[in-house]
Amino acid sequence: MNEQPTFVTHLECGLHGDRYEADTIQGLSRAGKPLLVRYDLEALGRSVTREALASRPADLWRYREFLPVRRSENVVSLGEVHTPLIRLAKLQPGKGELLVKDEGRLPTGSFKARGLCMAVSMARELGITRVAMPTNGNAGAALAAYATRAGIESYVFCPDDTPEINVREIAAQGAKVWRVNGLIHDCGRIVGEGKQAMGWFDFSTLKEPYRIEGKKTMGLELADQLGWNVPDVIFYPTGGGTGLIGMWKAFQELQAIGWLGDKLPRMVAVQAAGCAPIVKAFEEGAEHAELWQDAHTVASGIRVPVAIGDFLILRAVRESHGFATAVDDDAILQARDEVARQEGLLLCPEGAATYAAYRQELAAGRVSPEETAVLFNCATGLKYPLPEVHRTLDCRRPIDYEALAHE
Amino acid sequence: MNEQPTFVTHLECGLHGDRYEADTIQGLSRAGKPLLVRYDLEALGRSVTREALASRPADLWRYREFLPVRRSENVVSLGEVHTPLIRLAKLQPGKGELLVKDEGRLPTGSFKARGLCMAVSMARELGITRVAMPTNGNAGAALAAYATRAGIESYVFCPDDTPEINVREIAAQGAKVWRVNGLIHDCGRIVGEGKQAMGWFDFSTLKEPYRIEGKKTMGLELADQLGWNVPDVIFYPTGGGTGLIGMWKAFQELQAIGWLGDKLPRMVAVQAAGCAPIVKAFEEGAEHAELWQDAHTVASGIRVPVAIGDFLILRAVRESHGFATAVDDDAILQARDEVARQEGLLLCPEGAATYAAYRQELAAGRVSPEETAVLFNCATGLKYPLPEVHRTLDCRRPIDYEALAHE
Repeated sequence: MNEQPTFVTHLECGLHGDRYEADTIQGLSRAGKPLLVRYDLEALGRSVTREALASRPADLWRYREFLPVRRSENVVSLGEVHTPLIRLAKLQPGKGELLVKDEGRLPTGSFKARGLCMAVSMARELGITRVAMPTNGNAGAALAAYATRAGIESYVFCPDDTPEINVREIAAQGAKVWRVNGLIHDCGRIVGEGKQAMGWFDFSTLKEPYRIEGKKTMGLELADQLGWNVPDVIFYPTGGGTGLIGMWKAFQELQAIGWLGDKLPRMVAVQAAGCAPIVKAFEEGAEHAELWQDAHTVASGIRVPVAIGDFLILRAVRESHGFATAVDDDAILQARDEVARQEGLLLCPEGAATYAAYRQELAAGRVSPEETAVLFNCATGLKYPLPEVHRTLDCRRPIDYEALAHE
Repeated sequence: MNEQPTFVTHLECGLHGDRYEADTIQGLSRAGKPLLVRYDLEALGRSVTREALASRPADLWRYREFLPVRRSENVVSLGEVHTPLIRLAKLQPGKGELLVKDEGRLPTGSFKARGLCMAVSMARELGITRVAMPTNGNAGAALAAYATRAGIESYVFCPDDTPEINVREIAAQGAKVWRVNGLIHDCGRIVGEGKQAMGWFDFSTLKEPYRIEGKKTMGLELADQLGWNVPDVIFYPTGGGTGLIGMWKAFQELQAIGWLGDKLPRMVAVQAAGCAPIVKAFEEGAEHAELWQDAHTVASGIRVPVAIGDFLILRAVRESHGFATAVDDDAILQARDEVARQEGLLLCPEGAATYAAYRQELAAGRVSPEETAVLFNCATGLKYPLPEVHRTLDCRRPIDYEALAHE
């Protein structure tokens, strides 16, 4: 990978805007809020052209000038390909294109790879040698893969109802992983309280500044794929919300350097009816979301009762003239079934939630059939349980072929 | 997708070379052998440049002029992205690069997508409305997805030990699927004998001419990614062998139009010790392979006791000055473990077999540490069972952090 100039100037508190030094280890701001990475956008805009980017490989590192890693030797990569935009032609209700961005094609099968490849690359650049993380599954899998690749020791703590495949994948990829008899915030507490004794760096969502920069590439890549244009509306499955925050940051940075015009997409935060703190806060006009009690949904990736970046999610949704909306588990599973049976595309439950929300909001008139909509499928559908199949045939007897057609 | 000129002239018998008409439904040759698609390579070479290809999206359809589909409206796609080449820097024994081509990034998580997107696109072009296939799993999943997308009815028959995830995935994606109390050839018989009653087209491996053209894109893409160059040696997990045959065809076509020089890679067919008919035939100097009795291996994708394209596999291996080699199940599982724990890359068992074979042949001196080697990981490792994990923590008691480091 060639060296490229980099443009990080400083970090700043996402809530208060006070400044922090770049190129040194940073966690949360003094107010306990996420830090945002800031760039010299004027210099960045002068140093790179869209044509230059087009001649680079179609992966996340194409956007090096927009990213924090200073030196190519610190880039930790497992092949972060551009994820495809897949048209749902049969399900499209009008002239507006209905597109799925299939993030399941990334390393470890989920969009968590974007954030973690960036955070681990920065950990390497800053000399961090041991990290820890609470996870519901996919983030831990991505951390394990990239940390192992970087030669960084990783400790991962999962609620004991984390899908079996995630726990095994995390261990296979070289992390130390424990099941914990609690929820994600109990795991988070174990990570936080262990800092002193273990000397590990806390990789919890938004508690380090760089995962958001990795997720930002969803916005850069989407605009690039659409010819430096944006869709009318984006439906995003929202748990911790890093991706929604990151995409909105990307669009604003692209606008600042003149690569996008006035029009930005409406950002729609999709949650599950059984865990919808952002939807509640959005509807109440609040800046922060309250802890959601008794959170439950089949879409475990968006089962996040409290998000440290709540105010950033709400800000992006409001600034973009979007909204937050919730769908129930039946609608999620029905949406997954419909997209697979009609279009041959198997979504994860969180991705299916965005299609369920799209249908719901189409009916409610909050999106129009003439608008281009992008739905984010955040992980491969193969990591999640599918319905059983009971058809069997006895090959030692004559087959009644006519009957097959009616089974 | 833009229209491009196409160059198919005819099909020919892979064994005898007799000619068959293109643009009409064809199965096997009169001799019961696979048909190969032939192009007007001279006209093809004049019509397209490497620079023109570079400006198209990084997917399989970039190579339209090398492919049989005549009209873009018949292309059935789920986003066949270029799969990444991932370097195994820690495991690389010398100056030669050791690279994994990670085919798990394709739709439905395996390289079967390459063959099936092409075969289904051609089925649409030729007006086929119902297809059937015997499968050990991944091919059926790809068929289901693409056939559903194309509006073609699909019937899939699996041995009853087919992994549960594959059977469920096939059904979810809209195919009719049955478990059969037999092996893959029993399933094949059900498909063959049902043609009359069901009017379906037989999509068995190499029984239609176009899957091989889809798999050919592995060779086109690899050469493209290496700057229209080839590695010294390719390790390929070999069951039906469509990909090995297809890649070799790609390299020869590229050589014919002058995009590759004299040097082509050595092709190494990797099989499991419990099912190694091609290795046996290679060592005996035979043109065809005998049926392998009592086939068994953890790498179920290469558990193919008899391959209809055996002579084409053996021809490619010999013409390329490569070889065929077998590895046992212990070596396969150990290889998977080693690559995941050292490099953070989770391979499928068949992919892991190629790394096991690479180590074995390095020790035997049949490959050198100075040679660039490409290993094919044919599917995502997430579709296969991984070892259980037994570490648990009680979050209601004080955590003994020091102990964690030693667990």
